[in-house]
Amino acid sequence: MSAAPTFATVAILGIGLIGSSLARVIRARGLAERIQGFDGSAAVRARAAELGLCDALTDDPAEAVRGAELVLLCLPVGANAAVAEAMAPGLAPGAVVSDVGSVKLAVIRDVGPFLPEGVHFVPGHPIAGTEHSGPDAGFADLFENRYVILTPPPGTDPEAVERVAALWRACGSMVSEMDAAHHDKVLAVTSHLPHLIAYTIVGTAFDLEASEQQEVIRYSAGGFRDFTRIAGSDPVMWRDVFLNNREAVLEMLQRFSEDLTTLQRAIRWGEGQVLEDLFTRTREIRRGVVEMRQAGTFDAREPDAAEEPAKKG
Amino acid sequence: MSAAPTFATVAILGIGLIGSSLARVIRARGLAERIQGFDGSAAVRARAAELGLCDALTDDPAEAVRGAELVLLCLPVGANAAVAEAMAPGLAPGAVVSDVGSVKLAVIRDVGPFLPEGVHFVPGHPIAGTEHSGPDAGFADLFENRYVILTPPPGTDPEAVERVAALWRACGSMVSEMDAAHHDKVLAVTSHLPHLIAYTIVGTAFDLEASEQQEVIRYSAGGFRDFTRIAGSDPVMWRDVFLNNREAVLEMLQRFSEDLTTLQRAIRWGEGQVLEDLFTRTREIRRGVVEMRQAGTFDAREPDAAEEPAKKG
Repeated sequence: MSAAPTFATVAILGIGLIGSSLARVIRARGLAERIQGFDGSAAVRARAAELGLCDALTDDPAEAVRGAELVLLCLPVGANAAVAEAMAPGLAPGAVVSDVGSVKLAVIRDVGPFLPEGVHFVPGHPIAGTEHSGPDAGFADLFENRYVILTPPPGTDPEAVERVAALWRACGSMVSEMDAAHHDKVLAVTSHLPHLIAYTIVGTAFDLEASEQQEVIRYSAGGFRDFTRIAGSDPVMWRDVFLNNREAVLEMLQRFSEDLTTLQRAIRWGEGQVLEDLFTRTREIRRGVVEMRQAGTFDAREPDAAEEPAKKG
Repeated sequence: MSAAPTFATVAILGIGLIGSSLARVIRARGLAERIQGFDGSAAVRARAAELGLCDALTDDPAEAVRGAELVLLCLPVGANAAVAEAMAPGLAPGAVVSDVGSVKLAVIRDVGPFLPEGVHFVPGHPIAGTEHSGPDAGFADLFENRYVILTPPPGTDPEAVERVAALWRACGSMVSEMDAAHHDKVLAVTSHLPHLIAYTIVGTAFDLEASEQQEVIRYSAGGFRDFTRIAGSDPVMWRDVFLNNREAVLEMLQRFSEDLTTLQRAIRWGEGQVLEDLFTRTREIRRGVVEMRQAGTFDAREPDAAEEPAKKG
């Protein structure tokens, strides 16, 4: 990390968990001289002002991006198109626009067309967050030791890519690059499908009678509690993820459903060997995850750190 | 906790994660004068001997239970019948037999018929564990602040129930009682279905191409990693859970599949409101889980303790 700020002015559009965390780390590490913020919600702007997250706050995207070298879209992915259109008139020539959305093909589709000639677009996705939302939920080291995937379309100015990568590295992140379609497929497995399933099972429990629901909550340590954490994530953000990564999610969901049906059949017919074989194979994937963490590329504060007791049935 | 040992002799049958943790806490807190151990595996017996977990170790269940006031079956639930039959000739009159299995109707069905007149059976289930297995994986405070559910059949001697409850309270646990069938239904939701789903999704990822598999492991912080921890649990134990709680698991799995199909349809047809409504409702369950934890009834070391950053997409 150099002593000099990386940017003169950064614009952060959307002051939620990720946007407010970016504001905090940029401020804490002196990565920009000035932060200009936009949020569509008056309540969020008021709270962001109280927290001193930005040097200026506005409800006008064009005003927020005026004079900014770097513009960071930190919105639910479904909100990108409207905000991109509204901010376009304010963009400075040569500005770099990036985002933090969990879906990358959709943001290229929604934002790209509104960016004037000479403005660079470097889509990005930090694999970081919590199940909490809003400007109070953010913290400066949210991105420490986390992966950030950049998905610049072919032909993107390498210098613009490097400036975005440098910002993330200064936030403590490990930066990698990937094709946007490939990103969306990988994340469908690692994140979108797990969230969809967690939302589903918690919803299934919600439909139990009230007395059973209380017991489900009380005895949730047997595995269910992990699912409730995931299913406590921001509803609008996740609605937009599923609507905007439809093909990849449906494809993975189809595979998952087939595999689940196979297990269902094995349970019904008492085929113990089918179950045991699968349960043994999945340990290999777990080993890979644990080994990668032990290699030091994962945040030690993660819930599956070796010293944390987990659950059983 | 009284200064005097709760039991003269305790027999622990099965020296895995739970059995070895029980041996450790009973030893550490002086809850028994003598611990007699059985395990069917010579390697496990040798390791348990090295660790000094028991005062005697044998491969003969009848020998292990001889003279024991309390017998604790700590086996995969599918192994209970054979071990119960083998131990029966050694049981002392008036002995109390309990277990730690994740399914309770099946253990009553499998163990009950082998117990002689005058021996008391108090089935139990500690909602505690980790994804690790074997005698090295146990630790003395595994049961601290965890729930233990006892499911004594109607007519069970209340004094026998109280002796088992006293042991668990001395291990730091909170003890509740429940009908066995009801237990199996509640645990199907809180534990068995979550494990089945975690095994499935990790298996689905396992079937991806090798290069994608590596990326799934690398970017697993987006939710998938929680599932890999659950899916790293003991294959034989979990095979037996599903084979022995078939009806309740299939019933909950059916409900889950219907709910998942509804979401699948909403994604396919772009019905954002359906998704957002569910994702908002599931937050209520999460709130209940968090509130119960804040009420101090959950272990603060749990992975979802408030200070742990969780994940996002």
